[in-house]
Amino acid sequence: MSSLNNLKDYLSQIKGLDTGAIAKAQERLDSLTKPPGSLGKLEDIAVRLAGISGKTVYDSGKRCVIIMSSDNGVVEEGVASAPQAVTHVMTENFTRGLTGVAVLARQFNTDLIVVDMGINADVNNPLIKNKKIRKSTWNIAKREAMSYDEAVQAIITGIETVVEAVKDGYTLIGAGEMGIGNTTTSAAVLCALTGISVELAAGKGAGLKEEAYRHKIKVIQTALDINKPDTSDPVDVLAKVGGFDIAALAGVYIGSAFMGVPVVIDGFISTVAALAASRLNPLVKEYMFASHASYEQGSAHAAAALGIEPPLHLNMRLGEGSGCPLMFAVIDAASTVIRDMGTFEQANIDEKYLDEVKEGDNFTVVK
Amino acid sequence: MSSLNNLKDYLSQIKGLDTGAIAKAQERLDSLTKPPGSLGKLEDIAVRLAGISGKTVYDSGKRCVIIMSSDNGVVEEGVASAPQAVTHVMTENFTRGLTGVAVLARQFNTDLIVVDMGINADVNNPLIKNKKIRKSTWNIAKREAMSYDEAVQAIITGIETVVEAVKDGYTLIGAGEMGIGNTTTSAAVLCALTGISVELAAGKGAGLKEEAYRHKIKVIQTALDINKPDTSDPVDVLAKVGGFDIAALAGVYIGSAFMGVPVVIDGFISTVAALAASRLNPLVKEYMFASHASYEQGSAHAAAALGIEPPLHLNMRLGEGSGCPLMFAVIDAASTVIRDMGTFEQANIDEKYLDEVKEGDNFTVVK
Repeated sequence: MSSLNNLKDYLSQIKGLDTGAIAKAQERLDSLTKPPGSLGKLEDIAVRLAGISGKTVYDSGKRCVIIMSSDNGVVEEGVASAPQAVTHVMTENFTRGLTGVAVLARQFNTDLIVVDMGINADVNNPLIKNKKIRKSTWNIAKREAMSYDEAVQAIITGIETVVEAVKDGYTLIGAGEMGIGNTTTSAAVLCALTGISVELAAGKGAGLKEEAYRHKIKVIQTALDINKPDTSDPVDVLAKVGGFDIAALAGVYIGSAFMGVPVVIDGFISTVAALAASRLNPLVKEYMFASHASYEQGSAHAAAALGIEPPLHLNMRLGEGSGCPLMFAVIDAASTVIRDMGTFEQANIDEKYLDEVKEGDNFTVVK
Repeated sequence: MSSLNNLKDYLSQIKGLDTGAIAKAQERLDSLTKPPGSLGKLEDIAVRLAGISGKTVYDSGKRCVIIMSSDNGVVEEGVASAPQAVTHVMTENFTRGLTGVAVLARQFNTDLIVVDMGINADVNNPLIKNKKIRKSTWNIAKREAMSYDEAVQAIITGIETVVEAVKDGYTLIGAGEMGIGNTTTSAAVLCALTGISVELAAGKGAGLKEEAYRHKIKVIQTALDINKPDTSDPVDVLAKVGGFDIAALAGVYIGSAFMGVPVVIDGFISTVAALAASRLNPLVKEYMFASHASYEQGSAHAAAALGIEPPLHLNMRLGEGSGCPLMFAVIDAASTVIRDMGTFEQANIDEKYLDEVKEGDNFTVVK
C-alpha cells in the first residue's frame, strides 16, 4: 500500500463521537447542584470527553505533549529573529527540563515526547525520537518546502507517534512544536487554506522589528505566488508552503482522532496544523480542544477558520506546546465536576448525609 | 476605637508593592530562554507576585477559598430563580464537598473557609464559621440593606477572616460567595459605584426568564431611587444596596492587601466587591488577580471599572468562588516559569549540562 493510501486508510477509520455517552453526560450534568449550564465550557468539555471516550465520566490518566521539531529552509530569507541553530538547542533543552513547556509539563504531571522531524543538525540524544524526514525543508520563497510524498510521510509520522503513545498508556495528548521560521510557513499555510491576506496571517513571530516584518510578508507572498498550492488539497498546501513540523502536527490530530483520544491544540502553528487536519477529515475536529488564544497575529484568524474559542487568554506566544499543560488542568476540572459534584437528590439537607463530609488530604474545611 | 476608625486603620496600613523585587523578577524573566515577554500574562503574574511577596520567586504554599454566605431581604420581591433556603442548603453542601467550588478545591489542593455572614436560618455546623451579623439583610426595594455600622462590621469581619487565615499558614486567598438574590444587590452596588445603567449591570442570575428579568431591573432601579446611596462612599453604597456577603468580600480583599498576600477574584459578585474595596484604597487592587470572565451580564462592566482582564474565558456563572482553584493553577504556572526555566547562560549546548536532565516522578521524556 502506498503512503497516500495508508493516510487515506487512517482518515477513513475515524469515527464520530458516541452520542449515547454524550446524552448520558448531559443528563448527569443537569442533575448536579448548580443552575443548568452554569459551569459553562467546563460542562461543554465534560460532554465532549464523554463523546470521545464513550464513558459518562472521562478519566484522563497519563498525559503527554508531543513536540515536533524541524527546520525551515525559508530562514535563509531572514524571516526569523533567532538563528536556525536555536531549533536544535531548544529541542535539546526540552529533554533537559529547562524550557517553558518542560517546566509547565512538570508542574502539571505531563510527560514530553520530543520528535526530530527535520532538525538541520546531527542529533545524538536518546530522549529525542529520530523521525527525521531530512535536514530542513527547502526554501519556500524559491521552491516547494518538500515533495508531496514527504508531506504524506510527515503526516503519517505524526499519526504513528500518537498510536505508539496511546499504546504506551497516554490517554490525553497535547501538540507542540519547535522550528525557527515556522510562523512564516504557518502563515503561508493559513493563507492557502483560508484565502485571507498575508497581512492578516503574518505576525512578528518571536520578535521581528517593523522592517523585518514587512520583509516577512513579502517572502510569504512570494512563496504563495511561486508555489501555487492546490488550496483544495491540504497535503499539497503543507508540501508546497508548510514544514515537516506542521505536517507532523496535523498527523498528531489525525492520530488522536483515529485512536479516539482527546488532543489539545497549543498556539498559532498548532492551530494552523489543526486546521489542515480538519480539512482532511472534519471529524478530527471533534477530538480537539483549544487551549490559549496566542498573541501571534494570525492565531485568531486560524482559530476562527477552525471554529474554536480558546478558553485561556494569557497573551502567550512561546509555542513548544506550552499552552497544553494548563489546558490539561482545565480538562481535569471538567472531569472533576462531572465526577464529584453532588446531585440535587444528594443535596437535600438530611441528617443521614451530614456525616459524609468528604474531608481528606487534599480537601479541608477549616474549622 | 470605633469600628469605623478600626477599618480606617486597616486601610491606612496597606503598603504598595516592593519595586525592588519587581525589578529583580523582571530581570530574571528576561534572562530565561524564551523571546522576551512571550509567556504573556504568566510573566505579568510572576512579576506582581514578586512585588507582593518581596521575593523574586514567589512560592504560594497553602491556599484557600473564603466563601461568604448570606441572605438578602430583596428576594421577597421575586428577583431570584431559587428559593432563599438554597443559601443555607448550599452552604452546608460546601462542607460536604459536594458543590462546584468544593470539588474544584479538592482537585487543586485548595481548602475552604466557609463563613456564615447572615444566613436566614439557624446554622449548626462546626465547619461553618459563625460570623453572622444578623439573619438576612433588609429588603433594598423598601429600605437600606443594613445600617452603616453593620456594613463596617461586615467589612472588618472579612478582613479579620483573612488575618486569621494567614496566621493559619494560608498565603494565597480566593474569594467566593453564596447568597440567593446577590446578583441583584451586586448590580445595584455596581450601578452606584460606576453610574452605569441598571440594564447594563443586571443579568439573568441563575436563570431568570425574560419577564422576571424586566422585574429585577425595576426592583434594582427602585432600590437605587429610594436609598440614594452616597456614591462617593463605598461603605454607604454597600450599606444601602449591598449585602453582608458583598461587604465581607470587600473585607477579604482589603485583608489580603493588609496582610500582603495575593487574592483571587471569582465572578460577578466577587468583582463588584473588589471594585468597592479598591475604592476604599486603590492599593488593594495591586494584590488582586482576576480569574474568569463570568457569563453574568454585569461582569464585564465590573471588570472594566476595576481595570482587570480575567484570563479564563469559560462562560462560568456559578459563583461560590468556583473560578479561584483554576486560577491558582495559573498562578502556580507563573511561579513555575520564573523558578524553573533555564537561563540563556544554561541553555548553551555544552556537554557538561547534558547529564543534568531533570527527570523525576512528575516529568518523563519518553525514549
